[in-house]
Amino acid sequence: MTARQGGSALQQAPWSVLENNSPPLELLSVDQLEAIHEASLSLLEEQGLEVMGARARDLFKAAGARINNDVVCLDRELVLELIAKAPSSFTITPRNPEKAMHLGGNRIYFGMVSGPPNVHDCINGRRAGNFDDYQKLIKLGHSLNAISLFGNQTVAPTDLPVNTRHLDCYRANLTLTDKVFSAVPIGAIRVRDAVQMCALAHGLTMEEVSVRPVLVGNININSPRRLDGAMADAAIELAMLGQPVIVTPFTLMGAMAPVTLAAALVQQNAEALFGVCLVQLACNGAPVVYGGFTSNVDMRSGAPAFGTPENAKANLAGGQLARRYDLPYRTSGCNASNVVDAQAVYETQMSLWSAVLGHGNLVYHAAGWLEGGLVASFEKVVIDAEVLGAMAAVFAPIEVNEEELGLSAIASVEPGGHFFGAEHTMTRYENAFYQPLVSDWQNHENWVIAGALDTTQRATQLWQSVLANYQLPMLDLACGEALDDYVAKRKNEIGNNDLD
Amino acid sequence: MTARQGGSALQQAPWSVLENNSPPLELLSVDQLEAIHEASLSLLEEQGLEVMGARARDLFKAAGARINNDVVCLDRELVLELIAKAPSSFTITPRNPEKAMHLGGNRIYFGMVSGPPNVHDCINGRRAGNFDDYQKLIKLGHSLNAISLFGNQTVAPTDLPVNTRHLDCYRANLTLTDKVFSAVPIGAIRVRDAVQMCALAHGLTMEEVSVRPVLVGNININSPRRLDGAMADAAIELAMLGQPVIVTPFTLMGAMAPVTLAAALVQQNAEALFGVCLVQLACNGAPVVYGGFTSNVDMRSGAPAFGTPENAKANLAGGQLARRYDLPYRTSGCNASNVVDAQAVYETQMSLWSAVLGHGNLVYHAAGWLEGGLVASFEKVVIDAEVLGAMAAVFAPIEVNEEELGLSAIASVEPGGHFFGAEHTMTRYENAFYQPLVSDWQNHENWVIAGALDTTQRATQLWQSVLANYQLPMLDLACGEALDDYVAKRKNEIGNNDLD
Repeated sequence: MTARQGGSALQQAPWSVLENNSPPLELLSVDQLEAIHEASLSLLEEQGLEVMGARARDLFKAAGARINNDVVCLDRELVLELIAKAPSSFTITPRNPEKAMHLGGNRIYFGMVSGPPNVHDCINGRRAGNFDDYQKLIKLGHSLNAISLFGNQTVAPTDLPVNTRHLDCYRANLTLTDKVFSAVPIGAIRVRDAVQMCALAHGLTMEEVSVRPVLVGNININSPRRLDGAMADAAIELAMLGQPVIVTPFTLMGAMAPVTLAAALVQQNAEALFGVCLVQLACNGAPVVYGGFTSNVDMRSGAPAFGTPENAKANLAGGQLARRYDLPYRTSGCNASNVVDAQAVYETQMSLWSAVLGHGNLVYHAAGWLEGGLVASFEKVVIDAEVLGAMAAVFAPIEVNEEELGLSAIASVEPGGHFFGAEHTMTRYENAFYQPLVSDWQNHENWVIAGALDTTQRATQLWQSVLANYQLPMLDLACGEALDDYVAKRKNEIGNNDLD
Repeated sequence: MTARQGGSALQQAPWSVLENNSPPLELLSVDQLEAIHEASLSLLEEQGLEVMGARARDLFKAAGARINNDVVCLDRELVLELIAKAPSSFTITPRNPEKAMHLGGNRIYFGMVSGPPNVHDCINGRRAGNFDDYQKLIKLGHSLNAISLFGNQTVAPTDLPVNTRHLDCYRANLTLTDKVFSAVPIGAIRVRDAVQMCALAHGLTMEEVSVRPVLVGNININSPRRLDGAMADAAIELAMLGQPVIVTPFTLMGAMAPVTLAAALVQQNAEALFGVCLVQLACNGAPVVYGGFTSNVDMRSGAPAFGTPENAKANLAGGQLARRYDLPYRTSGCNASNVVDAQAVYETQMSLWSAVLGHGNLVYHAAGWLEGGLVASFEKVVIDAEVLGAMAAVFAPIEVNEEELGLSAIASVEPGGHFFGAEHTMTRYENAFYQPLVSDWQNHENWVIAGALDTTQRATQLWQSVLANYQLPMLDLACGEALDDYVAKRKNEIGNNDLD
């Protein structure tokens, strides 16, 4: 179960994939699921989505959609025909093929927090996102085996020029880690740069990576019912380059979606399917993921809330919908706390358990998310990695055979005795149990002597130690130089031009 | 969903019972479950349990058990015959019949922390358990709708004489709350006092309460394979007085049970079934609950660990075993943290989710447990109540009908607009979502202005406010006097005598 990593101070379970082979937890009845499905098809047919990008509108128009004032309505037959083209599973292979993600089925992968404008740790406090912290968070996520994916920006590098920062980020993503990362899904240019840099880092041609996905891109629907032009262009480009697209409506009940769960799911489903259709129009059979991000707002203040019971129900129901269409499912681990405290954890656990029980194949924001996504937290990364590792251990198979059943081991200990010294114990104790990263099981007295540190304080120590012991993953020298040359060339080409 | 309670400062969901009508999460295959079942019957047949009490040994002997040096071995036929007599569900009716517990099926009830020698709150610090805190914790648990049960002692009242403190506790349990509580399961005398005081408080005779359970009692097996005499006597007395017994082996893997999960489950199952058999021998068809309390120790230090992946797996598997015998199932919400922090919460969530997904009918220690059960924490009670309320909301049914599906509501909002002012929102917003007790969803700026309190600090404010607004439940004056008279009479009878 556990293995001490060569050269690292961190004792953790090896990189492995959580497989939840138990049936998913389904709160919607078959009839309820069908009612939501039918209502969302009616929504697409009668109300449609506003599409801001001409390229996307042209694709829909060519497919026979009805378009009026940029609002695109899709007949249900067309929708069903298009979503049937999408594959039910596919593989994304990063630089290190051992860290490939096989999206679909019962496999569940966890991603780092993605996109916060701010960053926080308990030594340096809360500050605007910057490229130094971006890179540290990549290193931290790379070192933690529970993490399989870097979404778009661990934190926004606001100290870099907007029009070229994607190049610096991609280079960091391709040198500081060998795991899957997301392209910056804003327009076609940034996506093409991502795929080209991946090809260089992998030593492959663009043709080769077009049939062997190397990264992923997540687009949001600007709920309710609006598809942004830059997002649409990014999705189209990703599909045309053979790279998977995640389509995630941003449906906060009471704000960007109706206040009832059923209606929010109708809207989420319609918007997600709309994006899936666009991807299929851009490229027949392109890999695409059904994304759900339905939570609620605090109706007293309008503030977003995450890790609520409504969020959990939506995570579970989203899985039912994605499976209804045989699509891989992306969901999220979130919370709305302002500090790495009890609330941060219980909200995250609520969203995480529902993500895992709902068979979310890809759990975004699973490590490091704080303040409703406004902050990437170093301490939270560590604590979440602990929880993700434990969660994987819960779903690891149980061994039952004569030795494991241990009748003779039990017979070897007298009534009221103990098993500490039993042979059955001695031969197994090192790997018998999940070994925690940051949990402290000392008794009160020893814990006080050791400084009475709470989990967040211990997490501060741990991320520092992980970064101090960080090991750069191997990269072919020529590939590294090709990346550097590409970034220099593109920065020169872009100059001070606006990319969008 | 939510209701402001009359006269209380606390806004919380009304008292209701969590029903998990989804299939339980089952990690053991049918074959694995049967292998554990068979091995535990072999254990009872070949190794047996040491029984310290003559009364229990006599019952086993009369039933044809083989006894050698106080070790009682049971043939599998006898075991299967006895456990088949136990009911699959039953009701415990406390003073307030609206707070009755219907144990069995898919219903899940949550209990307060039970038995810690110490108590902690963030104002007064850590201290030895005492009767003042005992009563405050009863008041707190009474005020929180998520709590249905008081186990044996919210905290040990170490300032009261050992031989009569049960009387003071019972009076507090019968006056400060009207919910179900546990007898002190140490010997027959304390159990009989509990039932007699319940009868007085309910205005019923002992004959009447013998066919209408009014309380519960939990006995532990002193694992491995030893049944304590005082516990056995308590179980027998409870059964003979018609009161339900919970039988919970204390099987920490690596210490009091083997290091492998399969073997620990074999031992847990054998020990639990042994207790169930005793209860049935004491009274044919007596209500009894299958208890599981299998976790692991830290193999480096021997310290107990809770809320681990192994604990979660055992909680889930325990449910499979209890259902195998058609018995109600008791499990627990636990953690080993020294402070109300991230670890306290993620460990508790791990045990809680597995308890709920495993269809634990009764979740002991679900609120307020800290330090592996050595401390009852006021702040943790509040935070756990939040989580328990949220958990109940997750499993509340989802409504799906035309109004809830909200197609016309969606049509009423333009693309990119918002639903804040929509009629569909306005008519529902007050009760649309779970309203938290202690979560804070303010943005960072407002949170800082409000004092930058973390969840534990807010919990300190909340338990103080709950206690300040505590309302004594109604009790018939004559019943109250009868209780006082009984306590006075029994204290006089007991004098300085040792009860055990």
